[in-house]
Amino acid sequence: MTENYMAQAIKMAHQAVKMGEVPVGAVIVNDKGEVITQTHNLCEIYGDPTAHAEMLAIKMACEQTKSQRLDNCDIYVTLEPCPMCAMALSHARIRRVYFGAYDPKSGGVDHGPQIYTHAAAHHKPEVIGGIQLKECGKILSDFFLKKR
Amino acid sequence: MTENYMAQAIKMAHQAVKMGEVPVGAVIVNDKGEVITQTHNLCEIYGDPTAHAEMLAIKMACEQTKSQRLDNCDIYVTLEPCPMCAMALSHARIRRVYFGAYDPKSGGVDHGPQIYTHAAAHHKPEVIGGIQLKECGKILSDFFLKKR
Repeated sequence: MTENYMAQAIKMAHQAVKMGEVPVGAVIVNDKGEVITQTHNLCEIYGDPTAHAEMLAIKMACEQTKSQRLDNCDIYVTLEPCPMCAMALSHARIRRVYFGAYDPKSGGVDHGPQIYTHAAAHHKPEVIGGIQLKECGKILSDFFLKKR
Repeated sequence: MTENYMAQAIKMAHQAVKMGEVPVGAVIVNDKGEVITQTHNLCEIYGDPTAHAEMLAIKMACEQTKSQRLDNCDIYVTLEPCPMCAMALSHARIRRVYFGAYDPKSGGVDHGPQIYTHAAAHHKPEVIGGIQLKECGKILSDFFLKKR
């Protein structure tokens, strides 16, 4: 199932490419295994540097569940969340964070500030990184290669 | 001038109290000294755990300036930004972060993950903390005392 959800997040990332957005896709799944939100980065179209896939997915999921707490939900995202998104996922009390490619330069979960190792993250989701990491990483490297 | 802008952020925090929101206010000022956005936490009303004052202020300022880069702008916020907001301010390339009360428990600038000390924060704003910190802190402590 994990692979299926990540495949869906990857689909979202491909959709981002077509729109000229940095290809990171995210899917939030509830405890019944239903995909409740799926989206991708929309910084360019929204003109908002905080419109990362995870931020948008959280907002949509809270709207849909009519709750600020996503404690029965998991997120699947194609790239290691940045510190902003990592902390947002903690604020939203998400249960698990599944991510694809590692991001040594800008990641905030396994790299950099390692958000969940600090007491400021009052909720620490379970983290499972490196899922379909080759495919997830390739979408990004292809995108940035073409941009040059 | 710094005091005037923080006073405006404090006004916003007081407005939050009236709405049952955690009283943190924020103001963004451009390089002409004009207040371009002023807002406060809206997590409860928006049902969104990421609707912190700084996040909303960034979004509004980007909309208003039609730019994802606020490199000529400063933010005045009554509380030390959390790691999510600290990173969002870096993504938005804000010039300076002026904050009021320190937040040893949940802050992400001078405390916890100290976002701007890591390479993942590709832009590091100048930080000036502790402005009108007593007044800024009192609004919060009064609010939480009443909540108990």
